[in-house]
Amino acid sequence: MIPIVAVVGGGQLARMMAAPATALGLRLRVLVESHEAAAALPAHETVVGLPADPDAIARLLAHPRPAALTWEHEHIPAEVFEAAEAAGVPARPGLHALLFAQDKIEMRTRMDALGLPNPAWAHVETEADVEAFLAVHGGHGVLKTARGGYDGKGVRVISSPAEATDWLRAAADGGPRVLIEEKVPFDRELAVLIARRPSGESRAWPTVESVQRGGVCSEVIAPAPDLPAHIAEEAAEIGRTVAESLDVTGVLAVEMFLAGDRILVNELAMRPHNSGHWTIDGAVTCQFEQHLRAVLDLPLGDTSPTAPWTVMANVLGGRRSSLTDALAEVDDAGAKVQLYGKGVRHGRKVGHVNVSAPTRDEAYDRAVTAAAIVRDGGQA
Amino acid sequence: MIPIVAVVGGGQLARMMAAPATALGLRLRVLVESHEAAAALPAHETVVGLPADPDAIARLLAHPRPAALTWEHEHIPAEVFEAAEAAGVPARPGLHALLFAQDKIEMRTRMDALGLPNPAWAHVETEADVEAFLAVHGGHGVLKTARGGYDGKGVRVISSPAEATDWLRAAADGGPRVLIEEKVPFDRELAVLIARRPSGESRAWPTVESVQRGGVCSEVIAPAPDLPAHIAEEAAEIGRTVAESLDVTGVLAVEMFLAGDRILVNELAMRPHNSGHWTIDGAVTCQFEQHLRAVLDLPLGDTSPTAPWTVMANVLGGRRSSLTDALAEVDDAGAKVQLYGKGVRHGRKVGHVNVSAPTRDEAYDRAVTAAAIVRDGGQA
Repeated sequence: MIPIVAVVGGGQLARMMAAPATALGLRLRVLVESHEAAAALPAHETVVGLPADPDAIARLLAHPRPAALTWEHEHIPAEVFEAAEAAGVPARPGLHALLFAQDKIEMRTRMDALGLPNPAWAHVETEADVEAFLAVHGGHGVLKTARGGYDGKGVRVISSPAEATDWLRAAADGGPRVLIEEKVPFDRELAVLIARRPSGESRAWPTVESVQRGGVCSEVIAPAPDLPAHIAEEAAEIGRTVAESLDVTGVLAVEMFLAGDRILVNELAMRPHNSGHWTIDGAVTCQFEQHLRAVLDLPLGDTSPTAPWTVMANVLGGRRSSLTDALAEVDDAGAKVQLYGKGVRHGRKVGHVNVSAPTRDEAYDRAVTAAAIVRDGGQA
Repeated sequence: MIPIVAVVGGGQLARMMAAPATALGLRLRVLVESHEAAAALPAHETVVGLPADPDAIARLLAHPRPAALTWEHEHIPAEVFEAAEAAGVPARPGLHALLFAQDKIEMRTRMDALGLPNPAWAHVETEADVEAFLAVHGGHGVLKTARGGYDGKGVRVISSPAEATDWLRAAADGGPRVLIEEKVPFDRELAVLIARRPSGESRAWPTVESVQRGGVCSEVIAPAPDLPAHIAEEAAEIGRTVAESLDVTGVLAVEMFLAGDRILVNELAMRPHNSGHWTIDGAVTCQFEQHLRAVLDLPLGDTSPTAPWTVMANVLGGRRSSLTDALAEVDDAGAKVQLYGKGVRHGRKVGHVNVSAPTRDEAYDRAVTAAAIVRDGGQA
């Protein structure tokens, strides 16, 4: 009997689980929105439907019964977890953990309770709440919807209560709650990626630096350059604390700000994450294999890097309307291009490039150059 | 339009093309014998049928038309190439090259013509031919059927003409022709793996040592240990000469004997090859990605190793009747296990393990240990 892993969500994260699922002799059954989803082609089995559709979830959990259910995005209704439990299929990670990736107010509250370093923040319900926060934090702050934001959406830097009015009104009408955070004058952003299996073993990859442009991750540098040992240890410790305290199984990413010597938790993702794509070509075990191992409670793989430096550069939709000819134009034999099989739209993540090299500058320059050629063509 | 690569043959070599096909944004359409074939699960599209079935080949070549046709074993009727040509689909490598992997007499004849080092050999049709060869080669030789042999089948060490009678009679009755080769007192076996694209670019991986047991490859050590520079250069030059002279496109393996300072060509394989599985975890570009790049005439990837040593150990069918529990028992986080999704039969290749390490002994011991646990369980 081939073990089946069921995945909710058909984007590139599910797509990139297919290769290690094949290598490990597993069968990957993926719930995709349509046959055009990024994961539909390489998935070993597909169920077409939405996470909110009970019939689709029933087919995802049907005989032969999956050994585990996991997901590749956080927009998963609680009913999916109830259906999994009723079917006797362990959901990993579970709903208790997902909550902290779904809801930023729940997450901040829990980070505070665990004594982990948060930016100053407040749940705001009125303009007066916002005004009070701004008054003690230098007149500006970062307004966020507690749920539903990603890649810069649901996030807004404000300096007056009036800029919060629409979201506060929506929250009062039953929309997502709103929080405000201090605008951290950070020097750079770090991410810790860690995997944990139900029986307790956990393994982290080296902490990386994530370079953002316009609220979207542009490049990831592994390892994070020039990180003082005590900072690296603190970041790793935060990752371990979150994984264990929240009882996460699978891969977890903790995004952090580094401001001088101060580390602050920014966001959690309880799934493979863009900050870990470098591991596909730059580590002994990639995050997608590790996630499958973790959710099946198999021994975790070695997270050591295979090169001094690996840089991942995202390919966002640009001048090319199709990526079909891109590979022919990349003039760098060591640039590892991964395409997601998605239609190109401006700014949409449609692929990435990894480059490993003996120096950071070389890895960075080559990855960025190759990604630009994939995105825009040779005139980039 | 997603480029389609059509593959004849549904074994583990086609199976391992699926992961890089996904990464490169391709669609892999595979002709499989049945839905239980190793490649059936990860293939992006399957056509069920045999290479000798014109209807199956027509479906393999049907709209949307593949950008290239390739194959993962040598048992391909000429009609497949005719059908591809009629459909306007380039077959890579082509029939002119395949011949030398299909037929050992054609291969030996061509190696001689190219001035490449062959063992002494002769096409034999009668027992008298055999007797004459044995008389001048120390009384023993290696008898081979020109076609159809693999993994020790179709090969027999003999010391009297009577031991050749059955194959000679079969040849006279229209069966495969028979040749005899000197029994080379070789010290070890080497393999050169090289990829070549139609526009001419070729790239070779470092020459490896292949360790055989019972006529079947047991381990591959990359790079081949303690290889004198002039031997390494001669091996690489043989690879280049074969690839160019025979106009091979795709990945080509040349297996060689090393006897003292003497290199001799043993066999050719014009496809990804067991001796190249180490590249999946031990080189910047693995043989399966390179094969896809080569048959699509895309720029070839970097063939540099990512570790000082990588050892591949084959998993042959052993005490376990199912490999489902094997992964839970491998107690080596750096052992990269690849399972082929095939039913276990004694001696059948059902997977492999790669281990990269700073020393050869460490890589070898760990790979062999992990492969034994996958094969037989923890008591191995």
